[in-house]
Amino acid sequence: MQHYKIVLPADLNDYGSLFGGTLLKWVDEIAYIRVSLDFPGQHFVTIGLDNVEFRHPIREGQILCFQCDKTRVGKTSVTYNVKVYRARYETESEEILFENNISFVCVDNAGEKSIIKQQE
Amino acid sequence: MQHYKIVLPADLNDYGSLFGGTLLKWVDEIAYIRVSLDFPGQHFVTIGLDNVEFRHPIREGQILCFQCDKTRVGKTSVTYNVKVYRARYETESEEILFENNISFVCVDNAGEKSIIKQQE
Amino acid sequence: MQHYKIVLPADLNDYGSLFGGTLLKWVDEIAYIRVSLDFPGQHFVTIGLDNVEFRHPIREGQILCFQCDKTRVGKTSVTYNVKVYRARYETESEEILFENNISFVCVDNAGEKSIIKQQE
Amino acid sequence: MQHYKIVLPADLNDYGSLFGGTLLKWVDEIAYIRVSLDFPGQHFVTIGLDNVEFRHPIREGQILCFQCDKTRVGKTSVTYNVKVYRARYETESEEILFENNISFVCVDNAGEKSIIKQQE
Amino acid sequence: MQHYKIVLPADLNDYGSLFGGTLLKWVDEIAYIRVSLDFPGQHFVTIGLDNVEFRHPIREGQILCFQCDKTRVGKTSVTYNVKVYRARYETESEEILFENNISFVCVDNAGEKSIIKQQE
Amino acid sequence: MQHYKIVLPADLNDYGSLFGGTLLKWVDEIAYIRVSLDFPGQHFVTIGLDNVEFRHPIREGQILCFQCDKTRVGKTSVTYNVKVYRARYETESEEILFENNISFVCVDNAGEKSIIKQQE
Repeated sequence: MQHYKIVLPADLNDYGSLFGGTLLKWVDEIAYIRVSLDFPGQHFVTIGLDNVEFRHPIREGQILCFQCDKTRVGKTSVTYNVKVYRARYETESEEILFENNISFVCVDNAGEKSIIKQQE
Repeated sequence: MQHYKIVLPADLNDYGSLFGGTLLKWVDEIAYIRVSLDFPGQHFVTIGLDNVEFRHPIREGQILCFQCDKTRVGKTSVTYNVKVYRARYETESEEILFENNISFVCVDNAGEKSIIKQQE
Repeated sequence: MQHYKIVLPADLNDYGSLFGGTLLKWVDEIAYIRVSLDFPGQHFVTIGLDNVEFRHPIREGQILCFQCDKTRVGKTSVTYNVKVYRARYETESEEILFENNISFVCVDNAGEKSIIKQQE
Repeated sequence: MQHYKIVLPADLNDYGSLFGGTLLKWVDEIAYIRVSLDFPGQHFVTIGLDNVEFRHPIREGQILCFQCDKTRVGKTSVTYNVKVYRARYETESEEILFENNISFVCVDNAGEKSIIKQQE
Repeated sequence: MQHYKIVLPADLNDYGSLFGGTLLKWVDEIAYIRVSLDFPGQHFVTIGLDNVEFRHPIREGQILCFQCDKTRVGKTSVTYNVKVYRARYETESEEILFENNISFVCVDNAGEKSIIKQQE
Repeated sequence: MQHYKIVLPADLNDYGSLFGGTLLKWVDEIAYIRVSLDFPGQHFVTIGLDNVEFRHPIREGQILCFQCDKTRVGKTSVTYNVKVYRARYETESEEILFENNISFVCVDNAGEKSIIKQQE
């Protein structure tokens, strides 16, 4: 699944670049949508991200492409790899701006850890 | 291109359903990202949408799938068809929740209408 | 009823002009307030807009005047004409920046279409 | 000039009522639009509000009517009286939910106090 | 208690300075957090602010320091003094940018005025 | 430095709990304010966070206390430890809801890595 976001004036810090924390918020939202679609009828909460590294500043007007792939399904948790590319001006560039692995745990209505029901 | 949005508490009207105008805002943003990616290095502004019809109320927690396809490229303008599906609980449903055609005109830095440069 | 909005940095796209979709969101909100006031105690949802045309780019700092008039009351639905004028610098200009007709349907608590009760 | 606002989920505190500070933000925005329209081509900044008293809690779904009247024009400053009424369910109620006087000073491009130019 | 806020592009008016009303919204939120922490298990609503005076324009990128001190505890209400300082570039400056007294009343679940229970 | 945030309806996901990504956004903003205050006149961008683990769901109305401490100052980068506590109902609880180390690099106007000037 690919997902796109455009960096708008309302997303910027006082030096005109995107907050690192805002990028993490987008990564979480996009992966949350993905896990909700992959396991319909079940509920998930984020439990962790790998070590986070920001190597490239991101500017206003930049369009970001988020590539989100399921890489591991455990008994009660699931992990996605999210890569962020620059998607404009130079068409989809090969350069990865940001990458992380984000994990979710399946929970029941009481918020207790619950077994993931795989679809056939 | 497919795009997903989750309907959150901050998007709702006072009866707990999504504002029609908020859905149109999302359609415009998603198609704007699409046209910016399809014609890199050129700038576009929205010039119109077809007659708009909302047939299905949309509730909190719903994940929406936006399918955005380029349907017409003219000398200075381009049109996308956007279909919105319900994407959760019942996996990708066939039922179209919303559909519209949205058009953009290519403009230069002075804001004047400009010829679309097609990529080879 | 007249309504005013000022275009602020948080409303802009990456080229410094207002998103067309944001203008539609405002039209929907303002007409929704109008229909809620005109028929107190009843609940409405947006069902449609006419063909949408954006002819004038709108910039930061612009104050917009929305003129919203009830033009049709049917058995279960009602239509408003919304005109948007530029309201600053040149005092209320005659030039219409944007115009549309927006319709709402009256619904009961179950979300079913319901008869509009006219006030005496 | 009358202005309307609807109280939406995104405006509420953790007990489901409108923050007093959010109401003041709306009063400031509406009076700022008013002064900008009354004196086109000049720039104003808020310099003060009278003693503020909140007497009535305001709930989700409430539509508020802001009545904004110019009450004093000085050499460099101008004052508006803003009254807020409940506008729904009981049609425009006579009861004032909130009232304040808000003043603006006219400033030049350097931010220095400047003489208000009255229109003929 | 001290609290900090950074002024970002999304907070600005069309002349690049902070809205007075936005500053009041922040004062209310910060004092609301303070009263909720000082009297755990009880619920408060804002009832008033002193006469408000804005003497200094506040610009993008400015970090504001809010100093919030409890100055009066009555039977059913409590007052905080909030001072706002400029906190950057010149390290914590002595100059007060803004000052006000804000009062809250303790309410029960029905929204009725209620006696403040002091902690030992 | 301590910092407080209240979890409001606009911050919640569709199950009524705080998004993990939103918590990371707050951690980044608060540490960004801290580094900007600690090294006035210099500019910083976030370069990384440690492995992220969310162990406790966070609900609407919760007040969070962020404790932010400088733990390492290098030649061009600086690290803060951020702990998040629950701050309400049970007064400041000892239990850590969330903890992370976040690092910033000092950059010049061209965005190049730059030496941190320590204050005497």
